[in-house]
Amino acid sequence: MSDRRTEILRAATRVIARRGVRGLRMEELAAEAGVSTSLLYYHFGDRAGLLRRTLEFISDRADRYTAEQEVADPEEALAQTLLLELQDTAEVRENSTAWGELRASAVFEEDLREDLARATHTWVHEIAELLGRADPFGAAPAHAAAAERLTALLEGLSVRWLSGSLPLEHARRLLRGAIELELSAGRAD
Amino acid sequence: MSDRRTEILRAATRVIARRGVRGLRMEELAAEAGVSTSLLYYHFGDRAGLLRRTLEFISDRADRYTAEQEVADPEEALAQTLLLELQDTAEVRENSTAWGELRASAVFEEDLREDLARATHTWVHEIAELLGRADPFGAAPAHAAAAERLTALLEGLSVRWLSGSLPLEHARRLLRGAIELELSAGRAD
Repeated sequence: MSDRRTEILRAATRVIARRGVRGLRMEELAAEAGVSTSLLYYHFGDRAGLLRRTLEFISDRADRYTAEQEVADPEEALAQTLLLELQDTAEVRENSTAWGELRASAVFEEDLREDLARATHTWVHEIAELLGRADPFGAAPAHAAAAERLTALLEGLSVRWLSGSLPLEHARRLLRGAIELELSAGRAD
Repeated sequence: MSDRRTEILRAATRVIARRGVRGLRMEELAAEAGVSTSLLYYHFGDRAGLLRRTLEFISDRADRYTAEQEVADPEEALAQTLLLELQDTAEVRENSTAWGELRASAVFEEDLREDLARATHTWVHEIAELLGRADPFGAAPAHAAAAERLTALLEGLSVRWLSGSLPLEHARRLLRGAIELELSAGRAD
């Protein structure tokens, strides 16, 4: 991806995290990214196209920072991958805010739904694979259901944290508890 | 509460579910409710006051439809209370959309945070009580943590359903699975 394109997507994520998807105007984004609005349309077609690429950008960025760990134990690798989405760093806060906003606005903007469902599916699949490594004798459908629950719980905890209903450390403890529950259920079968 | 006040809150919920919190303008709400804008300000002070009362109204309405069940078995009563938030009826869809929107917009609007945290706390407390009835030998802190996880998971599943990433029946199965996990963990202690 060209540097200019990446720069625009980085600016779009910043604007969404600051003002929401519904506060994103192409003119303001152009100003934020230091480019012309015609360049935005040249690269992304329209606002919906831009939002779709921003969703992908946010998703890839989360993949990157949740992969920044070298943990040999598969259970701990799973836990870290999930817990690294609940960190009080500027990047994670911005990324999680923007992801939550894209999720919330897809309730109202149908354009985003298909891409959001696809990104969700990819994420669930990655977590199901990690569950498979942590619980190699478990069944794949059980791992898929556990992965759906853990990622949906993480989204729920994340928006509670970002909306001031839940302290970050407590959210992390709750998530760790859920991971232990899912794994112990798999092993008890 | 006067009928007029209730009518305004019902209209506010409808408008939020249709266009989002950020699409709620006092003039449009007045038109939707068939009242003057000055009456809105008379009853609710300002927009933030109106949003706070709408949050309460939505919360009370959810209490009402999740209590519409006569189940003797405490485990099934807990399950029904949670599962009744995932129903494809106009009222539940509207209520859940508006609740999710208030949650999502509190990430950006600080005014709502305190009331939202309080409403969340009340809900978690109610679910913890139902867990206590379903698992009378379990410990209160474990029930509190389980209630936080189940309600956060429900919020996560609900917005996935409403944003088209998850079919409703599948969301219900995942939630039921989580309830069973939480209860079996309590009983295994």
